[in-house]
Amino acid sequence: MELRKDPITMSWVIIEGPEENGITPDDCPLCPGNDSGLQSIYSSPYNHPNWQVRVVPHLHPVYRIEGDAMRCGEGLYDKMRNLGAHEIVVETPDHALPLSQQPPEKIAQVLQAYVSRIADLKKDRRFRYITVFRNQGQSAGQDLSHPHSEITATPFIPRRIGYELRSAQRYFDLKERCLICDIVKQEISQQVRTVDSTDQFVALCPFASRVPYETWVLPAYHHCHFEEDLTSPESQLRFARFLKTILQRLESVTPAYHLVLHSSPNTNAKFEQAGSWKTLSDDYHWHFEILPVIASKSKSYSLKEVYYNSLPPEDAAAELRSIAIPAAKISGAG
Amino acid sequence: MELRKDPITMSWVIIEGPEENGITPDDCPLCPGNDSGLQSIYSSPYNHPNWQVRVVPHLHPVYRIEGDAMRCGEGLYDKMRNLGAHEIVVETPDHALPLSQQPPEKIAQVLQAYVSRIADLKKDRRFRYITVFRNQGQSAGQDLSHPHSEITATPFIPRRIGYELRSAQRYFDLKERCLICDIVKQEISQQVRTVDSTDQFVALCPFASRVPYETWVLPAYHHCHFEEDLTSPESQLRFARFLKTILQRLESVTPAYHLVLHSSPNTNAKFEQAGSWKTLSDDYHWHFEILPVIASKSKSYSLKEVYYNSLPPEDAAAELRSIAIPAAKISGAG
Repeated sequence: MELRKDPITMSWVIIEGPEENGITPDDCPLCPGNDSGLQSIYSSPYNHPNWQVRVVPHLHPVYRIEGDAMRCGEGLYDKMRNLGAHEIVVETPDHALPLSQQPPEKIAQVLQAYVSRIADLKKDRRFRYITVFRNQGQSAGQDLSHPHSEITATPFIPRRIGYELRSAQRYFDLKERCLICDIVKQEISQQVRTVDSTDQFVALCPFASRVPYETWVLPAYHHCHFEEDLTSPESQLRFARFLKTILQRLESVTPAYHLVLHSSPNTNAKFEQAGSWKTLSDDYHWHFEILPVIASKSKSYSLKEVYYNSLPPEDAAAELRSIAIPAAKISGAG
Repeated sequence: MELRKDPITMSWVIIEGPEENGITPDDCPLCPGNDSGLQSIYSSPYNHPNWQVRVVPHLHPVYRIEGDAMRCGEGLYDKMRNLGAHEIVVETPDHALPLSQQPPEKIAQVLQAYVSRIADLKKDRRFRYITVFRNQGQSAGQDLSHPHSEITATPFIPRRIGYELRSAQRYFDLKERCLICDIVKQEISQQVRTVDSTDQFVALCPFASRVPYETWVLPAYHHCHFEEDLTSPESQLRFARFLKTILQRLESVTPAYHLVLHSSPNTNAKFEQAGSWKTLSDDYHWHFEILPVIASKSKSYSLKEVYYNSLPPEDAAAELRSIAIPAAKISGAG
């Protein structure tokens, strides 16, 4: 595999060679008992045979951690090796227990695994960005049924993050305020696209939602680095409790979604990328974006290039708000 | 429907209201005999009952042509009406004759319809960009089985076009040469990603192909405006002949694809958009992008945000080159 840069849009594309193919094991490779061959990158409790959360290398990694990026040209084109990290966060030893059904204390342990891995990977100056994401459901591309998240570290900043960073910076230059703080403030005062909120956190369907029920979960206060913000067990537990109810609401309208953490890039990274944005941080605001995968008619070109959404976010938020989440479903397991 | 601007990525999103729903007629509404209720925007021969190519308003338009965009704010957000044009190019009266099976003379008539409609729509200063595209096959979102293309005119420049324009401009600023001219020159000299070429035109699988068999068809010479370039019947026929063979090659590996014309924006448009790019033209290079829709496993988030392509373009181009196209299939019908 190698990474190639589109000279026109500046996107990096992963090109797979024909010799590489994934295999599908019969048994779940992530369940305790089957997973003894996997190296533990992280586990909680630490190094305990009865781990609750565990991070292992991805079985079919898109990125490889060894060596250098070896950026080079090919005529006027740019390419580099598929350098990076690709890890799996095994969210529970229980094959059948979805994240949203775990008690908040366990979800907080998953958040701590994210925090720890991001902080560790950011020490590697070869990596410009760490992505944490979950594919829930087959139609969202979940390839292993055991509940898990994925973490990638890449020598480039993904496109959408780059656009967000650039816009946040331009807004900050103009207003001397954080764009996402202003969005949160307006949404909380209007209360039409908010799904839920506490003193500290808010969930909302964004004004220009790309898909029905798109939902963002974010701190109401300003902070750019997820892994420097949610460091205390108390803050992790508070966010876990909030996130759990949002996932439960969403899962009552869609079985499949992508959940993606957006946070500041690695400010320690070597500035080796000929990208079109600087490494920014303080004018950004970390958040989770949840993108439901709704079964729908195939997308025509017109709908691909210009996002087309059949459900206004005001209606989506109202529907998500109206779903009753019994208190027992929040605090306990299930 | 209205258009909303994502304040972060600056993309425009079409939001559909809940009251609007498409209907599916039982009979093909585009076939001669059923189409008498449709207003003719263009026909060839002109106003002839036995038309060969006809342009009609889209039956379920995403954009509406009346009135003004009425750009306005909603707090810190931006929105406007779904102003624009949405037309269908009926490529043949024959319901069962795909574009690639038509004789080059007929394909040239379709190209002339594109030229004529783009030139006409660019007279409307409300429109910043005219998109011409074809969705071939159900999995590419083709909703009417009668062979047709679509044309949209929008008060904004679509994202990908904007990124291309910006990169082309930056490259021109640096090199005083057209980026796409340089790409064409390098590809023709290397001959590894080219599918076919003539003195005037080239088809190639781009270096950072987003999907297997992605193919671009473009002039080997520099020209930014499609509708000012392919104006003579001779040039239309030459390009039709070339395009036909490329479509036939592609259709032997994939039944479904998007074909999209990329050309310079409307330089006559009112500069009413608060976009992040200027209206550019001379440093751009018109081309068709063909994006096959290959049935594959569902896309996980990691593959969505960073393009992931399982087939190197060198292999794709070699395969497409090796497909024999009998001369009879090119010049005649079928």
